[in-house]
Amino acid sequence: MNVNDTNYRTIWLKDEETVQIIDQRWLPHDFIIEDLSTVEETASAIKDMHVRGAGLIGATAGWGMYLAVKTGVDLSEAAQKLCATRPTAVNLKWAVDRQIEAIENSTDQLKTAKETAETIANEDAEFCEKLGEHGLSIIEEIAKNKKDGEPVNILTHCNAGWLAFVDWGSATAPIYKAFNKGIKVHVWVDETRPRNQGARLTAWELLNHGVPHTVIPDNVGGHLMQHGLVDMCIVGTDRTSYTGDVANKIGTYLKALAAKDNSVPFYVALPSSSFDWTIEDGIKEIPIEQRGEDEVKLIQGLNNENEISKVLLTPKESHATNYGFDVTPARLITGLITERGICKANKESILEMFPENKTE
Amino acid sequence: MNVNDTNYRTIWLKDEETVQIIDQRWLPHDFIIEDLSTVEETASAIKDMHVRGAGLIGATAGWGMYLAVKTGVDLSEAAQKLCATRPTAVNLKWAVDRQIEAIENSTDQLKTAKETAETIANEDAEFCEKLGEHGLSIIEEIAKNKKDGEPVNILTHCNAGWLAFVDWGSATAPIYKAFNKGIKVHVWVDETRPRNQGARLTAWELLNHGVPHTVIPDNVGGHLMQHGLVDMCIVGTDRTSYTGDVANKIGTYLKALAAKDNSVPFYVALPSSSFDWTIEDGIKEIPIEQRGEDEVKLIQGLNNENEISKVLLTPKESHATNYGFDVTPARLITGLITERGICKANKESILEMFPENKTE
Repeated sequence: MNVNDTNYRTIWLKDEETVQIIDQRWLPHDFIIEDLSTVEETASAIKDMHVRGAGLIGATAGWGMYLAVKTGVDLSEAAQKLCATRPTAVNLKWAVDRQIEAIENSTDQLKTAKETAETIANEDAEFCEKLGEHGLSIIEEIAKNKKDGEPVNILTHCNAGWLAFVDWGSATAPIYKAFNKGIKVHVWVDETRPRNQGARLTAWELLNHGVPHTVIPDNVGGHLMQHGLVDMCIVGTDRTSYTGDVANKIGTYLKALAAKDNSVPFYVALPSSSFDWTIEDGIKEIPIEQRGEDEVKLIQGLNNENEISKVLLTPKESHATNYGFDVTPARLITGLITERGICKANKESILEMFPENKTE
Repeated sequence: MNVNDTNYRTIWLKDEETVQIIDQRWLPHDFIIEDLSTVEETASAIKDMHVRGAGLIGATAGWGMYLAVKTGVDLSEAAQKLCATRPTAVNLKWAVDRQIEAIENSTDQLKTAKETAETIANEDAEFCEKLGEHGLSIIEEIAKNKKDGEPVNILTHCNAGWLAFVDWGSATAPIYKAFNKGIKVHVWVDETRPRNQGARLTAWELLNHGVPHTVIPDNVGGHLMQHGLVDMCIVGTDRTSYTGDVANKIGTYLKALAAKDNSVPFYVALPSSSFDWTIEDGIKEIPIEQRGEDEVKLIQGLNNENEISKVLLTPKESHATNYGFDVTPARLITGLITERGICKANKESILEMFPENKTE
C-alpha cells in the first residue's frame, strides 16, 4: 500500500541473503527498513514485535525458514525458535509447518524454501484483497441507507491493516476497497493500549492512504455505539476456532459486547490461515500470551525534541498485568469475512465454506 | 487518607484568604499543594482538572463560592463561572445552589459561606465513610466464599477514590474499610485513558494505603471476568439519574457489559449528592463533556530524566475525539451503594431510600 506515494509491502526479499521488513516499532514517527539475515534475527523481529499481526507473523516465519535453509540451520531447531516467539497467532505454526512439509519433500531445498515463502506471502496479500471484495459488499449495503454526504462509520480495534499482513490487511481491506471505489467512509480507530497499534499503525496507514479517520481511546466505542455513531465494526483475528470463537487483540471482546447491546453488526475479517481447525472452545483452549508489565507502565511516543522516547505512567512501585489477547465468543459475531466469502461464526457455516477441513 | 504516613484531605482552608488543594495533575510523580484565592483560580482548577471527581468538584465549588464572598465577586457571576467548568458532574451545580441559598438567607454572608463550604466538605467525607461501611458488607459476603488466602478481586475504573472526594472516596471506601478490617482484597485498576486517572491516581492512593493492586489497560477487564478473576466491580459516578442510569468516566459502560455477560456483580458507589433528581433517561439527558483532542494524542508521564513530560502517540496529522463520560444503563447495575444503604438501580428502590425527593 501507499507510503508517501510509494507502494510497499510489509516484507520482501532484498537479495538471496537478506529479507527486509518495515520495523513497525518506530511508526508513526519513523519509517525504518530492517534487514533480516538469520533465523535468530527473524525470531527476535517477531518476538519483539518489529513485525506483528496474524498474516505478517506467518509470512515472516515463512521467510525465517528460508533463512534457515540458506544459513544451514537445522529445520526443527529453526521451527522451534520461530514457534516459541508468539503463542497466540496460529499463522506462525501454520507457515512453519507448511515450509517443513515443502522443504522435506524437495530435492532443491533452497529453491523450494524460497518459493514457499513467496507463495505464503503472495497468498496472504491475495486472500486479503479477496476478502476485501467480499467485505466491500457489506459496506456498500450500509452506504445505500445513509443520507447523502454521510459516511459509513466503521470502528476497528488494533491494527488488522496491511501492516499486519503482507498487503491490504484483513479488517482494513474492505475499507480500502470501499474508499478506492469512492464510497464515503470514516474509521473510528481504537488506540489499542497497551502498545497502541491503532493510534500508531492503523491511523498511520489510513492517513497515508487518505482515508478519513479519528483516533479514540479504547474506552469510547460503547458510547459511540449507544449514540448511533458506529454503523459497523470490523476487526481482525490472531486465531479463530472452527466454531467461530475469535482470539484478537485484548479489548476486542468489550467492543463486541457493546456492538451486540446496540445492534451494531460486528464482523471479523480473516484469511483462512487464521483458522485453527483443532480448537472447539476458543475461550478455554486458545493460549493467551502474557507480556511484560513495562509495556503497560511505560508508553512510547515523540517527545518535545522530536525524539522517540518512553514515559512512566504509573507509580514506580505499582505492578501491571499485560494480557495480549482476549477471545470473543462466536455468539457476539455477525459474520466472518474470508477470502471465499462471508460466513456465520459457527461450525456448520465455517465448514461449509472450507469443506476440506471437515474431519468426519 | 495516608500520604507518606501523613493524613490528608483533598481540600482545606489554609487561612481566611486561601483554600488549599492537592494539584492532582502531577500525581503520582509529584505531590504538589496549590493555593486558591479567587473564583477565577478555583474555576481554572476545576476546568483544568487540578481537582476532579464528583465529590471534590462539589467541595471545590463550595469553597469557590466562599472565595466569591471573601473577594466581593457577585454571587451569580461566580456561580456561572464555576458551573461552566465541567458539564457532566452534578455535584458542581448542587454545591453552588446550596451555597447561594444559604448565603442569600444569611445576615453574615462570609460566616455562612465558610460554614456551608465546610459542611459540604465534611458531609462528603462523612457520606463516603458511611457508604464504605455499607459496601463493606458486600465484600465480607464475597470473602466468606473465598478459599483461605485468596483475596477478593475488585475491579474499578477511573479514580473514585479519596482524591475524587474530600476523603475515603466512593468506590474505594468499601475497599479501604475491608482492608482496614483485615479482609484480603486485591484491586484491578483500569488505567482509564485518556487521562489515566486509574494508573496515576487510584494506583497511587492504594499504594500509599498499602492495598494490593495491579494496573491494567482498559482493554483487559473483559478477559479477566471471562476467566473468573474478578469477584465484583465497584465504580463511582459523576451523575446518576433517579431511575438508576449512571454517568461515569468513559469506558464504564463497557465494563458493566462484561460484568453482566459474566455474572459479575457491578456496583456503583455514590453519596446522594451525585443523584440528579430531574433526569429520567440518563442516556438521552445527561450532558456528556467533550474535551480537547490533545488529551488523547499526547500523554503525560515521567521521562528518563525524571521530569514530567508529554509524548505524542498518534501521527501528527491524525485527529482524535475525547468524550469524558458515558452512561451505563440501570439494567446493567447490580446495586447502588449510598450513605443510607444499598438500593437497586431503579426509581422505586432509589426513591424508597431517598423519599424526600419524591415529586408526587
